Amino acid sequence: MTQQTNQSWGGRFSEPTDAFVAEFTASIGFDHRLYHHDIRGSIAHATMLARVGVLETHERDAIIDGLRAIEADIERGDIEWSVALEDIHMNIEARLTERIGPVGKKLHTGRSRNDQIATDIRLYLRDAIDTIAAELTRLREGLIELADREADTIMPGFTHLQSAQPVTFGHHLLAWQEMIARDQQRLLDCRSRVNVLPLGAAALAGTSYPIDRHVTAELLGFDRPAENSLDAVSDRDFAIEFTAFASLLLMHLSRMSEELVLWTSAQFDFIELPDRFCTGSSIMPQKKNPDVPELVRGKSGRVYGHLMSLLTLMKSQPLAYNKDNQEDKEPLFDTVETVCGCLRAFADMVPAIEARRDHMREAARRGFATATDLADYLVRRGLAFRDAHEVVGQAVAFGIEQGRDLAEMSLEELGRFSAAIDEDVFEVLTLEGSVAARNHIGGTAPDQVRAAAQRARDSLAALPAHAHWNPTAEDAP
Amino acid sequence: MTQQTNQSWGGRFSEPTDAFVAEFTASIGFDHRLYHHDIRGSIAHATMLARVGVLETHERDAIIDGLRAIEADIERGDIEWSVALEDIHMNIEARLTERIGPVGKKLHTGRSRNDQIATDIRLYLRDAIDTIAAELTRLREGLIELADREADTIMPGFTHLQSAQPVTFGHHLLAWQEMIARDQQRLLDCRSRVNVLPLGAAALAGTSYPIDRHVTAELLGFDRPAENSLDAVSDRDFAIEFTAFASLLLMHLSRMSEELVLWTSAQFDFIELPDRFCTGSSIMPQKKNPDVPELVRGKSGRVYGHLMSLLTLMKSQPLAYNKDNQEDKEPLFDTVETVCGCLRAFADMVPAIEARRDHMREAARRGFATATDLADYLVRRGLAFRDAHEVVGQAVAFGIEQGRDLAEMSLEELGRFSAAIDEDVFEVLTLEGSVAARNHIGGTAPDQVRAAAQRARDSLAALPAHAHWNPTAEDAP
Amino acid sequence: MTQQTNQSWGGRFSEPTDAFVAEFTASIGFDHRLYHHDIRGSIAHATMLARVGVLETHERDAIIDGLRAIEADIERGDIEWSVALEDIHMNIEARLTERIGPVGKKLHTGRSRNDQIATDIRLYLRDAIDTIAAELTRLREGLIELADREADTIMPGFTHLQSAQPVTFGHHLLAWQEMIARDQQRLLDCRSRVNVLPLGAAALAGTSYPIDRHVTAELLGFDRPAENSLDAVSDRDFAIEFTAFASLLLMHLSRMSEELVLWTSAQFDFIELPDRFCTGSSIMPQKKNPDVPELVRGKSGRVYGHLMSLLTLMKSQPLAYNKDNQEDKEPLFDTVETVCGCLRAFADMVPAIEARRDHMREAARRGFATATDLADYLVRRGLAFRDAHEVVGQAVAFGIEQGRDLAEMSLEELGRFSAAIDEDVFEVLTLEGSVAARNHIGGTAPDQVRAAAQRARDSLAALPAHAHWNPTAEDAP
Amino acid sequence: MTQQTNQSWGGRFSEPTDAFVAEFTASIGFDHRLYHHDIRGSIAHATMLARVGVLETHERDAIIDGLRAIEADIERGDIEWSVALEDIHMNIEARLTERIGPVGKKLHTGRSRNDQIATDIRLYLRDAIDTIAAELTRLREGLIELADREADTIMPGFTHLQSAQPVTFGHHLLAWQEMIARDQQRLLDCRSRVNVLPLGAAALAGTSYPIDRHVTAELLGFDRPAENSLDAVSDRDFAIEFTAFASLLLMHLSRMSEELVLWTSAQFDFIELPDRFCTGSSIMPQKKNPDVPELVRGKSGRVYGHLMSLLTLMKSQPLAYNKDNQEDKEPLFDTVETVCGCLRAFADMVPAIEARRDHMREAARRGFATATDLADYLVRRGLAFRDAHEVVGQAVAFGIEQGRDLAEMSLEELGRFSAAIDEDVFEVLTLEGSVAARNHIGGTAPDQVRAAAQRARDSLAALPAHAHWNPTAEDAP
Repeated sequence: MTQQTNQSWGGRFSEPTDAFVAEFTASIGFDHRLYHHDIRGSIAHATMLARVGVLETHERDAIIDGLRAIEADIERGDIEWSVALEDIHMNIEARLTERIGPVGKKLHTGRSRNDQIATDIRLYLRDAIDTIAAELTRLREGLIELADREADTIMPGFTHLQSAQPVTFGHHLLAWQEMIARDQQRLLDCRSRVNVLPLGAAALAGTSYPIDRHVTAELLGFDRPAENSLDAVSDRDFAIEFTAFASLLLMHLSRMSEELVLWTSAQFDFIELPDRFCTGSSIMPQKKNPDVPELVRGKSGRVYGHLMSLLTLMKSQPLAYNKDNQEDKEPLFDTVETVCGCLRAFADMVPAIEARRDHMREAARRGFATATDLADYLVRRGLAFRDAHEVVGQAVAFGIEQGRDLAEMSLEELGRFSAAIDEDVFEVLTLEGSVAARNHIGGTAPDQVRAAAQRARDSLAALPAHAHWNPTAEDAP
Repeated sequence: MTQQTNQSWGGRFSEPTDAFVAEFTASIGFDHRLYHHDIRGSIAHATMLARVGVLETHERDAIIDGLRAIEADIERGDIEWSVALEDIHMNIEARLTERIGPVGKKLHTGRSRNDQIATDIRLYLRDAIDTIAAELTRLREGLIELADREADTIMPGFTHLQSAQPVTFGHHLLAWQEMIARDQQRLLDCRSRVNVLPLGAAALAGTSYPIDRHVTAELLGFDRPAENSLDAVSDRDFAIEFTAFASLLLMHLSRMSEELVLWTSAQFDFIELPDRFCTGSSIMPQKKNPDVPELVRGKSGRVYGHLMSLLTLMKSQPLAYNKDNQEDKEPLFDTVETVCGCLRAFADMVPAIEARRDHMREAARRGFATATDLADYLVRRGLAFRDAHEVVGQAVAFGIEQGRDLAEMSLEELGRFSAAIDEDVFEVLTLEGSVAARNHIGGTAPDQVRAAAQRARDSLAALPAHAHWNPTAEDAP
Repeated sequence: MTQQTNQSWGGRFSEPTDAFVAEFTASIGFDHRLYHHDIRGSIAHATMLARVGVLETHERDAIIDGLRAIEADIERGDIEWSVALEDIHMNIEARLTERIGPVGKKLHTGRSRNDQIATDIRLYLRDAIDTIAAELTRLREGLIELADREADTIMPGFTHLQSAQPVTFGHHLLAWQEMIARDQQRLLDCRSRVNVLPLGAAALAGTSYPIDRHVTAELLGFDRPAENSLDAVSDRDFAIEFTAFASLLLMHLSRMSEELVLWTSAQFDFIELPDRFCTGSSIMPQKKNPDVPELVRGKSGRVYGHLMSLLTLMKSQPLAYNKDNQEDKEPLFDTVETVCGCLRAFADMVPAIEARRDHMREAARRGFATATDLADYLVRRGLAFRDAHEVVGQAVAFGIEQGRDLAEMSLEELGRFSAAIDEDVFEVLTLEGSVAARNHIGGTAPDQVRAAAQRARDSLAALPAHAHWNPTAEDAP
Repeated sequence: MTQQTNQSWGGRFSEPTDAFVAEFTASIGFDHRLYHHDIRGSIAHATMLARVGVLETHERDAIIDGLRAIEADIERGDIEWSVALEDIHMNIEARLTERIGPVGKKLHTGRSRNDQIATDIRLYLRDAIDTIAAELTRLREGLIELADREADTIMPGFTHLQSAQPVTFGHHLLAWQEMIARDQQRLLDCRSRVNVLPLGAAALAGTSYPIDRHVTAELLGFDRPAENSLDAVSDRDFAIEFTAFASLLLMHLSRMSEELVLWTSAQFDFIELPDRFCTGSSIMPQKKNPDVPELVRGKSGRVYGHLMSLLTLMKSQPLAYNKDNQEDKEPLFDTVETVCGCLRAFADMVPAIEARRDHMREAARRGFATATDLADYLVRRGLAFRDAHEVVGQAVAFGIEQGRDLAEMSLEELGRFSAAIDEDVFEVLTLEGSVAARNHIGGTAPDQVRAAAQRARDSLAALPAHAHWNPTAEDAP
């Protein structure tokens, strides 16, 4: 068999494909990982074709048996992918015909590789989304439990990386949890747009066979068939929307990572990460490096890059399918893998974070973190806030000069800045008083943190089933 | 009054801000456009403070009257923004105190500029989203009507910019409509995450005043208060998610633009754009250029850039607010304006597109566009699809050599390639036969196009109210 | 005069431009800032046209006088830009004809707006590059002087934000200087590709007038005429290359900013930034925020975004000029302004950085920073490095447990980990010994730092003239 | 041997690395491809260590022999990479010690993995640059030869994809050549910044061993040692600058690709690509798709993405080395491979492009492409250009109405628009007259095209040696 006749489109051509071009344009090097979804889609397609009378029952059965056998071969590692056969579709179909004879050629009736690949990717991505949704749930659970445990732990809250006001560590962790909860919502929104069936669009215009796309959609668990065949083969929105979700997620993980790196530095020393999540140096024997958060932080670039890659890819492409679209898969695959890896690492690591409560507290005690409380105290004594701010600013300037915090000044010293200051001022200058006072929804008071943790648990419980477990194993039609 | 004491944070500082630094760090140059939303937020805040007893009723009234007067001044152009006052918040507050005296200083009780700006942007963006959603509706309506009108118009469908199969122009336009419909769904999903109230988060930890955030949320039309104060002042997800929506939209518009540019070229000549949407050349007197689609295509880069800008901005920022975040506004404002401009141009232009039906038809007639129909015909005569493909490929090779299309060959000539070809073959080789045969949901058959147009109209009718009209004028609390 | 006849391309059109389209496609809103370069280019063009006999001397003089008068008007603010006239070129030309009569129309002979705008932007960018190169010189000088001053100041060197080995602060500052020096080299490389003359390419193919492009190039200070007219009007590489330079520069500034923010935190407290470079909080009276580095860090996103914007813009544009290209200007202008602002802020701020030498030293003393020195000591005593590393690792583990650094252990204690340790070990465990030992080119030893500072000064002295001063004022032909 | 003691940094740790973390953080999965450069760097390092007396001659020889044997093993496929050993450095070193005993451990004296990996990547990238420079030369040669062959072939020149003025196909091809020539210049500029030696920076501060970095630099062909150790281990500018070069190159290739796709469409039909560079369709037997240019166009997104990835990666990283940097390699490797593949495909394909000269000419004849020539003719007859433009615009409007081009009108008809039109007008309305008239440097006249081709050949001849051949095979020290 010559190279040419191997191919699915030889008749019109007068010379075989250049060897380098064949390799350069082939996608089997990366799309082979879609084998399971390709076969799953083919089985549903054959089932539908038999249902509408295009295939005989025995043809359908031969095809389905053949496909299942091929899947088993692949899983056993017993297959060699052929570049001459270009892609996963032709590799599987050629093997099918080899195995079951000419009836194998009937499988491609009423479809094209254009709608087939769009279907494969959507099946693949839907599974990936379900896995990721479940990992997001696990990470959220870890954060909520840790937050609950640390609801009373006081640390300095920062703005501009300057000590701002005391907050609780639990409150800080729930801020992270909010970010991840939004990511999960976005992912579920994205899933509903992924879960639409392109098959039946054929090359671009639909097919003249009497197909029933509702049947295929139902067999594959899609919500509905795509409304327009030209759009169905051209659309890569779902990949971009997913990658945009992933970019936001990695952005959030990069922010958490930045804080974990800061907090494990000798200068902050707010937390300890267990040795098993860290690595050392080949030259500096004392080093214990927070590799996991650093690496995750770096991986934000990777995912941002994939988003930009896909957006650029689709810019100003005329309808319908163009070869450019083959470039959609590698960024998507790598985004899925990166997200899965980073989430696994974080979901494993978060519950193992150990707070150094004494260091956190000591850091909060310094830095005039209760200056706002003093200003608020003065407001309650009748000053306008702006005036109170000015008074406290002067007290702080005095404190910096003297090397003493507000709580370390005497009543007499404080009184120099405003006559409104009385003995009860020292209550508001305590850390516990400061955090407890922020006692409204969203505030850092320990009771609020515990209530927020409970609400977060409730929202997890309300998620749809596919955000809780990975249905991959059960996805055969 | 010196520069320093003008500022809201002078007390602790020993030297005034460097003049260039003041200018470099000030945001009033661009955030002044938030004046309406800033004032609206302040009125709600004052109303809530009075409700919980922090302000007296007369104080609230003085503040609200003062703010309304200032808004009127601004709209009259009767205000000079001060760089020394840094931002829109301090500019308005300083003017308020000038106008109503010391009570003006009480407005800032229980809030900070950190939660204030987050609230302002969300109010601004929610209005922008409603305007954009309405423009998307208008564009979709234009596409649906044009598609209905052109449901029977036959043109070549392309893949790889090579003639592939005949489609109807109406079908092609509905492919565009599907893209825009997805964009609109994404926008509405985004809106639900925008519509959350940050106010009450204060600087980062909440406030010790007895605020009621549910009241403020209700006054401002927010769905609920943000769950976590640290997150509320740090979160810029909504801006990124909106910009990701906009990137997808502009990507779609760039694809439509590319096709409009192709179709108005002398080589395609499929459509005519009215002169009023085109411009000429200062040097070449014959030129009529499709400027609008070209410019929109170029603006995809602008919006992609803003998305990347915001993602980079937020990468690895520790909590809570950092000055970096000031950079969120210009990309967001420009994205909103770009989207509004492009949508207006497209929504105006689409109904004015004139199809050159004869050119489209003539192009479809050439290029062996019905080759797939011939293959399908052979399958119905008993060949396996792959074999039929080979047969037709050879007929095409013969046609290229002879300079004749399939329908221009004699039965005898066609018969050389397969004995299964009979006289009725010429029916399937007609353009009308080809498109009519693709008669299933998503297919290009004219009846399917009309049915799809109707379903699209129904889906428009089912949209929430804020996707149909612009509520900006009625947004005062 | 109707809108239509105002325009430079009316003859072929049957209806005037839609009012919104006119506004949407006009560039005068932003390209008016090119007025100086547009006029400068026009003067050179008129001079050349007269030199080759296309203009009479008196025509040339009338045109040049007219253009100079218009420039004076503009600088006096005495001009109203007209959207109907689309762009800066037509605005100026229309005014010229108004002022000097029909001879003004002759200026556009042998050129087109396509080559005119390309010339304007290159002139603008060349001036911007010279300004920026001079600011880079100023920043490098500041860094070198500060490094020299702090050549003996010991601080902890970090990897993974964990204390690694002692370094000198001067050494750290020279690392920054290296980054900026590379940026400056890249900028100068870019300049040589900017400094090429597009004028004479006309619309796309050149012109039938007997122009002499070498004359125009010389008059405008360009190195040579562009080699190909189609390329000359389509090429926007120079803008992208400049923006890529700017992205690398801002990346470097973001890294420095990150460190400045860390170092001014209470936890590090390594440096002090003067009050004039910082701002406070409207709610927290104690705050002093490092706004300048934070804002510059954030602006990296802005410039990355512009780079991505321009790359997307040019992706898959067919030759020659397309309207898309109009979108090149705003990102370029904003990149230039952002770079100038950030450099000014940094060049002003760097010399004012005050090292807290005692805090730096104290931080270096802790954290087992001399562990590598101990390992090296053991190697000199005959151990293989890998074995020495193991020994020291165990000593560190002991130190962590005991809360003592290596230098705080007794000889007896150290001796437990290796018999090779002798009394002279304490010399290598000092900070001074550690840094002085790294005494080779590129090493942190104070003498090396001083020598490196001198080499950096020499490299500054070797820069071309246009990297040292801003020639803008003298750029008229 | 436990996992822990396998590692290069075990001493200080109390529990082994988590298995997933080990896999997640290991780089051996992709950095193994640096084996050749790692070994080459190690050989130079050992040679230098012996030169300065840190290694005995026999130790050096044992190490070098061992390394060469390991390289041979690897090339034979006789090695299994170990994830527990993290990276290529430890994998090779562990194998070295296995093979030659404890002396193998001495190789790591005076260096760290931080400077080692920086050296490896620079060596790798320098080789890649030389390969790419040579491919760029080959592509430029192909373009120049084709341009020379097609110097007289007339085609329509386009702006806004509307027929603008006649140009020669050779001129168009030289526009492409100019783009590629600029890319090559940028690459060579980049090479000079890549070719600097980091080794000797050790972990971050230099080393206390008496190394001679000038020796190592010379042995490895580097221009000089890096000036600053902190910068040397942190700097990834070279990767970003290379990726920026690649983005510009791919942008250019995407523009060429867009034109190739247009020109092979049935609507343009300007060129033919040989079958061996095209592929077909599995469903449409008539299709011949320009896959190579489409795929290359799509790959622009891939490379833009990598650029964004690396810029994001480095944003706001504090000095010196952080684990994030491990993420630099995959984008860089993929960029190199993508560039090599695309260039090979283009350099192979360009010489095989067949112009359909008759189609090009026919397209140029239509579309009023000589309208500018008519305007210029009128200027020579005394009209101001702006007035001539108006006259010709009206003639074009008449021609559109009548369906006739300018050259198809009678003298009498043309005369209606201006009395200045005489019989000799028909000379300027010919295609040959039009292109020949643009006879100045950069113009489209055939003689200018031939002269430009010759200048381009000369510039190729003047390139440095490493832009002409691939020195990889001879790069051993």
